[in-house]
Amino acid sequence: MFKKILIANRGEIALRIIRTCKEMGIKTVAVYSTADRESLHVRFADEAVCIGPAPSKDSYLNIPNIIAAAEITNADAIHPGYGFLSENAKFSSICRENGIKFIGASPEMINAMGDKASAKETMKNAGVPTIPGSDGLLSDVKEGIKVANEIGYPVILKATAGGGGRGMRIVWKDEDFEPAWDSARQEAGAAFGNDGIYLEKFVEDPRHIEIQIVGDQYGKVCHLSERDCSIQRRHQKLVEESPSPFMTEELRQKMGEAAIAGASAVNYEGAGTIEFLVDKHRNFYFMEMNTRIQVEHPVTEEVINYDLIKEQIKVAGGVPISGRSYFPDMCAIECRINAEDPMNGFRPSPGRITNFHSPGGHGVRVDTHVYAGYVIPPNYDSMIAKLITVAQTREEAICTMERALSEFVIEGIKTTIPFHLKLMKDPNFRAGNFTTKFMETFDMEK
Amino acid sequence: MFKKILIANRGEIALRIIRTCKEMGIKTVAVYSTADRESLHVRFADEAVCIGPAPSKDSYLNIPNIIAAAEITNADAIHPGYGFLSENAKFSSICRENGIKFIGASPEMINAMGDKASAKETMKNAGVPTIPGSDGLLSDVKEGIKVANEIGYPVILKATAGGGGRGMRIVWKDEDFEPAWDSARQEAGAAFGNDGIYLEKFVEDPRHIEIQIVGDQYGKVCHLSERDCSIQRRHQKLVEESPSPFMTEELRQKMGEAAIAGASAVNYEGAGTIEFLVDKHRNFYFMEMNTRIQVEHPVTEEVINYDLIKEQIKVAGGVPISGRSYFPDMCAIECRINAEDPMNGFRPSPGRITNFHSPGGHGVRVDTHVYAGYVIPPNYDSMIAKLITVAQTREEAICTMERALSEFVIEGIKTTIPFHLKLMKDPNFRAGNFTTKFMETFDMEK
Repeated sequence: MFKKILIANRGEIALRIIRTCKEMGIKTVAVYSTADRESLHVRFADEAVCIGPAPSKDSYLNIPNIIAAAEITNADAIHPGYGFLSENAKFSSICRENGIKFIGASPEMINAMGDKASAKETMKNAGVPTIPGSDGLLSDVKEGIKVANEIGYPVILKATAGGGGRGMRIVWKDEDFEPAWDSARQEAGAAFGNDGIYLEKFVEDPRHIEIQIVGDQYGKVCHLSERDCSIQRRHQKLVEESPSPFMTEELRQKMGEAAIAGASAVNYEGAGTIEFLVDKHRNFYFMEMNTRIQVEHPVTEEVINYDLIKEQIKVAGGVPISGRSYFPDMCAIECRINAEDPMNGFRPSPGRITNFHSPGGHGVRVDTHVYAGYVIPPNYDSMIAKLITVAQTREEAICTMERALSEFVIEGIKTTIPFHLKLMKDPNFRAGNFTTKFMETFDMEK
Repeated sequence: MFKKILIANRGEIALRIIRTCKEMGIKTVAVYSTADRESLHVRFADEAVCIGPAPSKDSYLNIPNIIAAAEITNADAIHPGYGFLSENAKFSSICRENGIKFIGASPEMINAMGDKASAKETMKNAGVPTIPGSDGLLSDVKEGIKVANEIGYPVILKATAGGGGRGMRIVWKDEDFEPAWDSARQEAGAAFGNDGIYLEKFVEDPRHIEIQIVGDQYGKVCHLSERDCSIQRRHQKLVEESPSPFMTEELRQKMGEAAIAGASAVNYEGAGTIEFLVDKHRNFYFMEMNTRIQVEHPVTEEVINYDLIKEQIKVAGGVPISGRSYFPDMCAIECRINAEDPMNGFRPSPGRITNFHSPGGHGVRVDTHVYAGYVIPPNYDSMIAKLITVAQTREEAICTMERALSEFVIEGIKTTIPFHLKLMKDPNFRAGNFTTKFMETFDMEK
């Protein structure tokens, strides 16, 4: 097993990884930007190395500085967390060249899954249901319209290098195709330096349901059931839960088998997530595969009593898995607490936290890197805590979440706690009656 | 179900009960002494009533004031927590007379179990193994020496009204009997106003293992497996865990059945605990029955995913239980964090908490009523937090505990965190190799 792991990340996920390393008796190295000197991940690591100024490109995305920090501290592995370099094939490759184990996917795997069009092709060949669409990239508007008519409107245009909703356009009829094509290409080119566009059937009123998988170095893959992440705002997940209130035993079996087939087809090693869209008839379609730990991994941990970061480290260290899949015993919900003002369009609200008190008690988990006196820098994403509750039923987990949210004290900044309190009371949310469009009509004022 | 519950307690257990009431949609009334104005239990309750000055006899033990608070606020039930009035037959009786449901044992049950000699007799008649000893109270030294010779030395003298080690003396031979008898009687008379003394076989190197039970109003009783509370200092529990590292499937079955038999014999209603001494040959002997929730109930909650306070409230409200018993799926440990200085004989350390930060993450639960800025009053017991960890194995739960203890920030006062950190590293503790005598030889300095 590894002796020392460098965590190439910040915030709650860096602290999350340090916690498991401590429990496993593995030394840790934190890296941090000058804006993050006071973060708990720096305080709780065994060693900490400053890797540059606040802008991510100069620190958390600065590969030479991170590799140098690993070499100086003699770390034998790097855990990239999520975001930043976690799905960067070049970084994974450089780690390998430097004899440092990258606790994540191989460069080949990242490349295979990072390009959305080729990922879809790979999954389709493995028998995973995919959304009908163009055969790879579209060459021009004419071809696009032809394909759209074959599979039927509505369709969605997507940037092959895209993410976070950029370069995406929904098209409902022939006349709207060309303007959508032009603006999607332009946006994709500007955002990703790649204006390749493909097309898919647009699934109306879909749910976002993803399957957690873990693969070892010996070809075994298991799944750890699903997370429902349909509560999203502008493609950013706000609330995740497991099991999905929409799930049936039969659908879980089918989606789990599809996820294992997909991951097995590429000899996937490590923890990964296969994201699916599920329509109202419970047809499911591969969306994408994330070759890293997800923000929302704790809901899976809580329902199956399983430390996913520990599992990542173990499989990276060559420990085999049993191969059996895991099914939820409990119900868990996660609310992402962001430093944003839900009464003002979720505008970011960085600044000093003047008072901080975590909720506690039965069924409550808090993952956070902040504390009273901490200054949230404006440079990074606005998530400052994850609040997770777990209970025997979904209704009880929601009641515990309401109670825990009402106890959570974060003063000096605005947070999304009032939003979550309102959401937990929403009759449609409570009934499990929602799709990825839910937030489009959710009104904070009502 | 109840509409409003008054919580006749303070500190973490008052907050614990409020949390479950909130999750059940039941309104809460906190009562508080003038020393507890700033406690979280006051802040989080729906209503709060000051019931008197700091000394417990004037507030938390002041029955007329508490009943008046319940009547003023129209509470239909009272939860007494642990300590204070939780095992006070008169209070239970007055609640009944006033039409307020006491969420605890009936006055008859409290009386039956509160007198240790008669409790033992009751259990013996129900077939629960008891420690051989005198047939009730001893009349004089001569009778005592006769019984001691019948069952064999060592024996222990105990005050019938006793508790917390007062009025107890171990006797190893005839010559020592009379002085021990005299001093035990004197101490018991002074402490409890009752100098009745009985005698038992002294179990050498015992473990304290208790069985949690729940009974409903329809005669059904189930057990929720055991807690090992052997790590004690001067009869005060410091650390509790479930399952016991000393337990076998066979012993759990036998102790569970004995606990159910004992509780059934008295038609026990509510949550209760039957405490046993277990010797090194895995013989077990009834010690006493606690007719209330215990401080250490969270370790049971964590290993079987079961909210015990909710269950107390439900059975008090007339909900039947299924009757099936519960067996631990997980391993949980609780460390009591006291405001005491472990480097100076665990001397109390009340005062202002200047900085406070809870540990978090997977497998960590914190139950506490304190926060940064809170002033711990000198009037009450020194427990300020309970830190509970849960994992798939005992070794992992200990590793998580070490990690969580190392993250726990409580500044401005001394706490027992350094003691627990040291204990978690102790090879005998880690091996599960300890008895109730463990702390007698534990050295903080080494």
